Amino acid sequence: MRRSIATVSLSGTLRQKLEAIAAARFDGIELFEPDFISFTGSARELRQQAADLGLGIDLYQPFRDFEGMPDDLFRRSLDRAERKFDVMQELGCPLMLVCSNTSPASLGDAERAAAQLHELAERASRRNLRIGYEALAWGKWVNLYRQAWNIVEKADHPHLGLILDSFHTLSLRDDPMGIADIPGERIFFVQMADAPLLAMDVIQWARHHRNFPGQGQLDVVTFFEQALLAGYTGNLSLEIFNDVFRETPNRRTALDAMRSLLFLESECKNRLAARAQEGTDEARAPAATRALQRLDLATPPAAQPLGGFSFIEFGVDEATGQALASTFQALGFAHTGRHRSKAVDLFCQGDIQFVINTQPGSEARQRFEELGPSVCAMGLVAPDPVQAANRAVALLSARHTSPLGPNELQLPAIISPGGAVVHFVRAGSTLDADFVAPVPRAPAPQAGGLTHVDHMALALAHDQLDTWTLFAQSILGLGAGESLELADPFGLVRSCALTNAQRNLRLVLNVSKSQRTRTAQQVRATGRSGGGVHHIALATQDIFATVQTLQAQGVKWLPISPNYYEDLLARLDLDEALVRRMQTLNIVADVSPGGGRFLHAYTEPFADRFFFEVVQREGGYDGYGAVNAAVRMAAQENAHQRASAGQ
Amino acid sequence: MRRSIATVSLSGTLRQKLEAIAAARFDGIELFEPDFISFTGSARELRQQAADLGLGIDLYQPFRDFEGMPDDLFRRSLDRAERKFDVMQELGCPLMLVCSNTSPASLGDAERAAAQLHELAERASRRNLRIGYEALAWGKWVNLYRQAWNIVEKADHPHLGLILDSFHTLSLRDDPMGIADIPGERIFFVQMADAPLLAMDVIQWARHHRNFPGQGQLDVVTFFEQALLAGYTGNLSLEIFNDVFRETPNRRTALDAMRSLLFLESECKNRLAARAQEGTDEARAPAATRALQRLDLATPPAAQPLGGFSFIEFGVDEATGQALASTFQALGFAHTGRHRSKAVDLFCQGDIQFVINTQPGSEARQRFEELGPSVCAMGLVAPDPVQAANRAVALLSARHTSPLGPNELQLPAIISPGGAVVHFVRAGSTLDADFVAPVPRAPAPQAGGLTHVDHMALALAHDQLDTWTLFAQSILGLGAGESLELADPFGLVRSCALTNAQRNLRLVLNVSKSQRTRTAQQVRATGRSGGGVHHIALATQDIFATVQTLQAQGVKWLPISPNYYEDLLARLDLDEALVRRMQTLNIVADVSPGGGRFLHAYTEPFADRFFFEVVQREGGYDGYGAVNAAVRMAAQENAHQRASAGQ
Repeated sequence: MRRSIATVSLSGTLRQKLEAIAAARFDGIELFEPDFISFTGSARELRQQAADLGLGIDLYQPFRDFEGMPDDLFRRSLDRAERKFDVMQELGCPLMLVCSNTSPASLGDAERAAAQLHELAERASRRNLRIGYEALAWGKWVNLYRQAWNIVEKADHPHLGLILDSFHTLSLRDDPMGIADIPGERIFFVQMADAPLLAMDVIQWARHHRNFPGQGQLDVVTFFEQALLAGYTGNLSLEIFNDVFRETPNRRTALDAMRSLLFLESECKNRLAARAQEGTDEARAPAATRALQRLDLATPPAAQPLGGFSFIEFGVDEATGQALASTFQALGFAHTGRHRSKAVDLFCQGDIQFVINTQPGSEARQRFEELGPSVCAMGLVAPDPVQAANRAVALLSARHTSPLGPNELQLPAIISPGGAVVHFVRAGSTLDADFVAPVPRAPAPQAGGLTHVDHMALALAHDQLDTWTLFAQSILGLGAGESLELADPFGLVRSCALTNAQRNLRLVLNVSKSQRTRTAQQVRATGRSGGGVHHIALATQDIFATVQTLQAQGVKWLPISPNYYEDLLARLDLDEALVRRMQTLNIVADVSPGGGRFLHAYTEPFADRFFFEVVQREGGYDGYGAVNAAVRMAAQENAHQRASAGQ
Repeated sequence: MRRSIATVSLSGTLRQKLEAIAAARFDGIELFEPDFISFTGSARELRQQAADLGLGIDLYQPFRDFEGMPDDLFRRSLDRAERKFDVMQELGCPLMLVCSNTSPASLGDAERAAAQLHELAERASRRNLRIGYEALAWGKWVNLYRQAWNIVEKADHPHLGLILDSFHTLSLRDDPMGIADIPGERIFFVQMADAPLLAMDVIQWARHHRNFPGQGQLDVVTFFEQALLAGYTGNLSLEIFNDVFRETPNRRTALDAMRSLLFLESECKNRLAARAQEGTDEARAPAATRALQRLDLATPPAAQPLGGFSFIEFGVDEATGQALASTFQALGFAHTGRHRSKAVDLFCQGDIQFVINTQPGSEARQRFEELGPSVCAMGLVAPDPVQAANRAVALLSARHTSPLGPNELQLPAIISPGGAVVHFVRAGSTLDADFVAPVPRAPAPQAGGLTHVDHMALALAHDQLDTWTLFAQSILGLGAGESLELADPFGLVRSCALTNAQRNLRLVLNVSKSQRTRTAQQVRATGRSGGGVHHIALATQDIFATVQTLQAQGVKWLPISPNYYEDLLARLDLDEALVRRMQTLNIVADVSPGGGRFLHAYTEPFADRFFFEVVQREGGYDGYGAVNAAVRMAAQENAHQRASAGQ
């Protein structure tokens, strides 16, 4: 399909936007009129710049408040349109978007609207231009695609067609299932936008919070599939009004945009293929087959059902590595291996593998120099690691290759947003082959009963959240879970959880809405690239034993206010003896309506950057104890202030 | 009145909040429960800390989902309440806020709710505690104060009363005029919050966007006056959920909070006095008189109707001063004076006085070292300058005094947020007395026909907007006008206009919502204090002559895209010859529905920090040409990129 994007979706001057869009290999743009009005050159110069970059100017948008006007205003609008047609011809742009009228002066007479659009289309046809009519979600008389299509049918002019926008339909909870019944050749353009579900006025929602397919919660796949079943073969385009995208570096936005389209196409292709083959939907099967035959939809290797974390690797210098090794040992990890050829050490407990990489000159070490102590790489379990990496690359992740020593393991790997390496590892395989037994440095610690990584949380700059969400959904195959705002003493932190269907791979993305929280300070410390680890939660089946054992080995648990436990007793139906035991061990709790329970405890931060959490899930609890985050963040702030005061 | 504030309204740990609240001389706090739950000490320790700071713990809040429950849940909630009563007794806190139930399990039976609240009040009475019941705007059954009062009346217990919150009433557009009919002694507490009018779900609005009286658009004065007419004599308290306040330095927030209460009290006092004296409201006159006799409402000197800008003073070093002098001369200003004893120069045109202060060691010069080139002081015309300054000081502005030379003018002055000095100047007076004729340095420029300062725009850090809005409204007596979001190539900029009734003093506050706009960069360059000048708009009655004359003297006007003028012709009913003349001179235009017109042109920036604008208002145009801001900001970005590229 021909892929395009509206210029409003990216930051920068128009020239910079075009360069970013071309670099992401789009075919064309929707020219957002204000971008053109601010452009320093003429229409012809813009056409040339776009052409030099291999981009068509596929749509001129928006033309507002046109149809259904009283006659005098209609005449004036025709003059306005003719001036815009002049511009479009200079631009070499064949199609104009007319969005449904929002003017208080407009009249709700569909016949009038149709007649006026007919006249506009007739004028356009004289210049070989076309008009697409779109139902705006807040149009005064027309806000559903059915209404717009009704008027287009009435107007009955070959140069007039329908424009669809997923946001305008799905934001109103309108049913997209009628789209497939519209003749595909009368749909002149399709704009796709996703969005998080927000309880706000639709105009504010539309102007500030749309995002790319795969970043939000609208059913964009069903919407676009309907257009394909209708026989639509035109542009697959993105039109995103988003406050954060306006300031996000535009090369990244453009790459995310293209990734979102490839992901959307592949999801639609799977749906169409199912429809065409299984015969479950006889009425639509021929249309699905035709669409598949006609369209070159993106076909990345199929998504793999990923398993959990195989290993997590920390890139640090020698001094930090020593401190981290001590922390791991206090946490009950055994130092099980030294890399055969590099300054890399392996620590194990249960199914958890932690790697400390201090190899001078390595990428891990470079990452440390740049970001400070953080996670430089992780291994994720995949049934077919090569396919998993190939899918990621097909969806525009950079492939990662590192120099290998003799007989070292070669793991298919890619780069995640923010730069950490994601390796794909076959289930059950370990890193042992690359490691030899280390020289014992200290008495082996007592294991703490930690079994596996429950989740990893990242601290992201605010413009990284949508990038990471799309990466996690399209490439890691995770689904979005709870998204909450947590109160730090110095502002709110948004926390978005993603997990796979099997619930053995969980990621939490934390973004500070304030510049002054510890999370924000941590992100700033890593530079704008973000993606630094915020905390790593490790699972146990007996948190009381674990906390006690590890405490004896020197782990410092974050002290929780006694008032928390009084509130817990007032709030939840918990046994008082249990709560008092929790209190002595600084364990906090959450419960879920279905009877699930979550017990967890936080360590004090490592190097003021990240911490570990020990968690025990019971009874199908599926959250992350967010209810306790405010208490945690206040305790961390208090601990920090005490440390700063030298107490 | 006893003044208090909820701890949720400020940033920081609870200990830091208490210190900030005490420093602003509040009498007490509303203890927001999550702050207590995170507090590291016990209830007794908190009570002691508050007492040591001279603060009472006046309200414990909130207690949720209590009334109207099925019996079993009611019993559990009573147990929960008893545990909270324990805490309150330790805290020495006499009053608990119960907000109306939002639980799906609650029943909409007012009799049941009343009986359960009666039982709660009875239990509270045994410990000499009291219960205040408040209608939450999103309560499941009760969301209006009338409903809450109805239940309180039904419950009929002396330890149960009503709590009022201006936000919960005014956000629902409910009429507060019935409050005066409630017996004042049955109102146990009044929480005040203002808010901007936003089109969003009331819960989101309430949790993220409340602000202090005088910062928003709700009629908080009428609301509070109603409570006073009812005979209420309890706390005047603030409960503000605001994302920005959560990260604003809490000493400033606390000072703004107290200022907002003093302002609110004085506005209410004026209303009550008018009601009591004029006999326009016979029914309420006795209540108004009683309230005035009983209450010690704040009485700052009366607000002065300020006039326009008398002078604007720039603090710079010698080199920047030279450049600025050249800019002023190109703009048609005559160098009319040299200060008698200091390195300070005066430039005049029409009624405009610009001052360049390069005096080594002066505050102006220190401000330059800190912020770079900016406005260090301004003079505002006031009928009674001493009273104007006294009012500001009564409303917590710091008074400014500077060392005076012999026979120098002494102007009453205060410090504005961000640190610039505001002098108050009698109408018609000039600075001439302090200045002597300068040595002519260059041929006198030709005057450009500039008559007065139309408006001054400031670039503020995002946490300065509410602070400045309150300062402008309470101390400068300005009213809030349009508030718009403007699209810079790298993000949105919110622009809020304030003006006096006579329309001769206009301020525009610009806040970047993005970190990457030029406005944001400018704010960062000045450090967090903000308050740097963004641009100064100067009025003319013939913008064509002005622009041409000044251009001949070397003023560089920001080049506007030719596409802008094509769009102007399409969009507005303007004479083509006029538009082409505008195009040659880079003049842009806006029109208002009533036939008003605004022609304006922007200079290129001075030292990459601020620019001048020349404006011509016609036909009662009352805006600021915001429709052209996107074109301006794109042009500034293009100019900056060209300059950076060395072209």
